[in-house]
Amino acid sequence: MAGYTASKEEHLRRLRRVEGQIRGLERMVDEDKYCIDILTQVSAANRALQAFALELLEEHLAHCVAEAVAKGGAEADAKVKEASDAIARLVRS
Amino acid sequence: MAGYTASKEEHLRRLRRVEGQIRGLERMVDEDKYCIDILTQVSAANRALQAFALELLEEHLAHCVAEAVAKGGAEADAKVKEASDAIARLVRS
Amino acid sequence: MAGYTASKEEHLRRLRRVEGQIRGLERMVDEDKYCIDILTQVSAANRALQAFALELLEEHLAHCVAEAVAKGGAEADAKVKEASDAIARLVRS
Amino acid sequence: MAGYTASKEEHLRRLRRVEGQIRGLERMVDEDKYCIDILTQVSAANRALQAFALELLEEHLAHCVAEAVAKGGAEADAKVKEASDAIARLVRS
Repeated sequence: MAGYTASKEEHLRRLRRVEGQIRGLERMVDEDKYCIDILTQVSAANRALQAFALELLEEHLAHCVAEAVAKGGAEADAKVKEASDAIARLVRS
Repeated sequence: MAGYTASKEEHLRRLRRVEGQIRGLERMVDEDKYCIDILTQVSAANRALQAFALELLEEHLAHCVAEAVAKGGAEADAKVKEASDAIARLVRS
Repeated sequence: MAGYTASKEEHLRRLRRVEGQIRGLERMVDEDKYCIDILTQVSAANRALQAFALELLEEHLAHCVAEAVAKGGAEADAKVKEASDAIARLVRS
Repeated sequence: MAGYTASKEEHLRRLRRVEGQIRGLERMVDEDKYCIDILTQVSAANRALQAFALELLEEHLAHCVAEAVAKGGAEADAKVKEASDAIARLVRS
């Protein structure tokens, strides 16, 4: 069971909405829509993806990382390091 | 004709790849894949979307904005302002 | 003369404010202030630096790039490419 | 004692370097340096600030959050929520 299982349906709904935004972008490009309108839609899709990632990360900290930390030891350190690396990738992407 | 018409096929290919990444994310969530692997995939999709946006923006500056600027006047100022606002939205998203 | 000469004083004021924010961060670290409060201050400094960069970029597009584009030729293309590269660095940083 | 006390000197060195970069920016603006060179320096300062923030955050997760989580209860949940909010601010700034 993953840390986000309780909110799986909510995550899937969110991702399907992002998928719809990307298909909307394809349609806009295909119909030669104005560049600026396409860029506005890209920003919206980026923000939606980020919101999904932040939600998932919070659940990961609250479950997977918290469990490992409660047990302590090398596994706890590894989980914190792994989460920190994922955060760094998000901040930089 | 939009400023990006010459590279329309390339843009569509890129966006379809992003769409595939989002569907990959849905599959990962559906199969309870590990949070960190999902976050890595989100960062990749975000970067791909950004690369598309930056490409589009460059073409917009090189065509739509350049044309307006060559004519000068209020339209030129408006185009520069509009592009700057889109850049700000990208930087902040 | 740079494209931003007219608003030079405003830019300097803004940068001195950021410098003050960074010195504030040094003080917070030195006094062992709470990590989360430090991170909040980092986000504020980042946003202030970004606002400065976006302002400068808009002036650059409105003056340096616009002038090159009005003359046309290879110099125009080079200026648009150079600005696009700077935008990409900002979006990714 | 804050979670980052062990690496306090390293953090202060890093922040002083950022402060130097900001003063470098003030000098560049004062001397009417070329916009694009200034923007490159802004990206460097932003990345340096981010690196500091990510380092601090990792220590915060490894110490403050880990301790609270090991004790469990409402305090643990509050610490995870607080860290997640700080991460969201960083990702969005």
